[in-house]
Amino acid sequence: MTVLGLGPMGQALAGAFLDNGHPTTVWNRTAGKDETLVARGAARAGTPAEAVEASLLTVVCVIDYDAVHAIVEPAGSALKGRTLVNLTADTPERSRRAAAWAEENGVRYLDGAIMTPTTSIGGPEAVILYSGDQETYQEHRATLGALGAGGVYLGADPGRAASYDVALLDLFWTSVSGLVHAFALARAEGVSARELAPFAKGIGALLPVAIDEFARHVDEGEHPGSASALLSALAGMDHIAHASQARGLDTGVIDAARAVARRAVEAGHGGDSFSRLTETIARPA
Amino acid sequence: MTVLGLGPMGQALAGAFLDNGHPTTVWNRTAGKDETLVARGAARAGTPAEAVEASLLTVVCVIDYDAVHAIVEPAGSALKGRTLVNLTADTPERSRRAAAWAEENGVRYLDGAIMTPTTSIGGPEAVILYSGDQETYQEHRATLGALGAGGVYLGADPGRAASYDVALLDLFWTSVSGLVHAFALARAEGVSARELAPFAKGIGALLPVAIDEFARHVDEGEHPGSASALLSALAGMDHIAHASQARGLDTGVIDAARAVARRAVEAGHGGDSFSRLTETIARPA
Repeated sequence: MTVLGLGPMGQALAGAFLDNGHPTTVWNRTAGKDETLVARGAARAGTPAEAVEASLLTVVCVIDYDAVHAIVEPAGSALKGRTLVNLTADTPERSRRAAAWAEENGVRYLDGAIMTPTTSIGGPEAVILYSGDQETYQEHRATLGALGAGGVYLGADPGRAASYDVALLDLFWTSVSGLVHAFALARAEGVSARELAPFAKGIGALLPVAIDEFARHVDEGEHPGSASALLSALAGMDHIAHASQARGLDTGVIDAARAVARRAVEAGHGGDSFSRLTETIARPA
Repeated sequence: MTVLGLGPMGQALAGAFLDNGHPTTVWNRTAGKDETLVARGAARAGTPAEAVEASLLTVVCVIDYDAVHAIVEPAGSALKGRTLVNLTADTPERSRRAAAWAEENGVRYLDGAIMTPTTSIGGPEAVILYSGDQETYQEHRATLGALGAGGVYLGADPGRAASYDVALLDLFWTSVSGLVHAFALARAEGVSARELAPFAKGIGALLPVAIDEFARHVDEGEHPGSASALLSALAGMDHIAHASQARGLDTGVIDAARAVARRAVEAGHGGDSFSRLTETIARPA
């Protein structure tokens, strides 16, 4: 196997191949990142083309797709007839463009997204999403299993893994933005983060319930109101904004969330479920 | 016991008192909300003052503090020497003002916040936060226990329950705003909500880990970077925004979250933990 890019995630991926007894060749743009891996038996390549030629399967995991193209395009002829698995995170559109480049250059291509931390790689908790040509996935499935138990194939659209990835990151970073704001607001009111934490976990535990309920609404295109109807949600969000303003805190995120909810209420959806906002988001003001 | 306000939550509270064998008097601004309760043995009062005079303990749970004051102030002399427990949700500042009004009028006062749905009231899963005079809480603790097992006294500052409440709502509504955006983005990419849901739950399960880690950082005032350092978070948030723009979705919430993260990165905190943003939020641009 070949691994291009030896940031923390690339190193974890190469390490997992080595742990599974796969001959592994590594390359990184800057020197010094491969020493532990070489000590464990990895071969060091001088260029991406040399690295790619050492294996039938190359995994690339770098900062973004600009970096992928800068590394991979000069190695295009070396990659011809081989398989490139791109585990770099970026947008679905860029995944599809990378797949188109691969097709034009006779490179077999899978796009992927790693959903769990470096420490999970190679273990039972790793979740890695793949999409692209199904035959290529089937051929390398067992080998890719070295990277972790939770490999999931999502379909032939090469942008599909990135679609899941970007939507899940959306949920994660927005939630975490709410978390830091909650801590800031609590602290401004004299409540320490440790005091709030157990109750915050209780709130987090409500999320799976909302996920199932909203998923049903979204797919059915019906958003029946419940205890969390939009009008009452908006009243709660107004309290958050007012309390934050009173303490001089930044209110950008909650104000933006209120603006979406307000738009739905003004359109006559005040009695609907919060899931109605999926429609509002799809039709910006 | 007296319950003022018979919306879904007020009805649940009065029902829980009745279930525990407490003589219960109820009042609502509009007629027709008390029929089930009266059939179960509740006494119907014609005015708030009449309702308040029937019991030593009055619980009020209405839409907001404007409604509380409109109901309670005309009954001020009837309330003198009795206890008012205000379970209406609003800001900490308004809780403190209500407590000040109560003190001026010789009314014993507790402020509270109900953290769980109406269906939990009276049961083992109900979580109700209380703050205000400790002696008053101790005196009524057993009676209030009828409303649910999870009564928590947070301290003498009457704004403390509302502080927890508003911070926890902040986390909840911001997370749920992220959830509906994630569903909208996935759908724009051809991924149904049901397909995304199991992975979304996996993301939600990461939240408790972040809560504990960030709580430590926030209370210690140190924000050491990790895999979720700000610069990499910002790159992820940029992908979300670009993918959303490409599909014509509203990007208000993620743009606001990016703006906070960008401000921290520009201030030199790119290698810090995301928890650093609690400081950024406390010093708006």
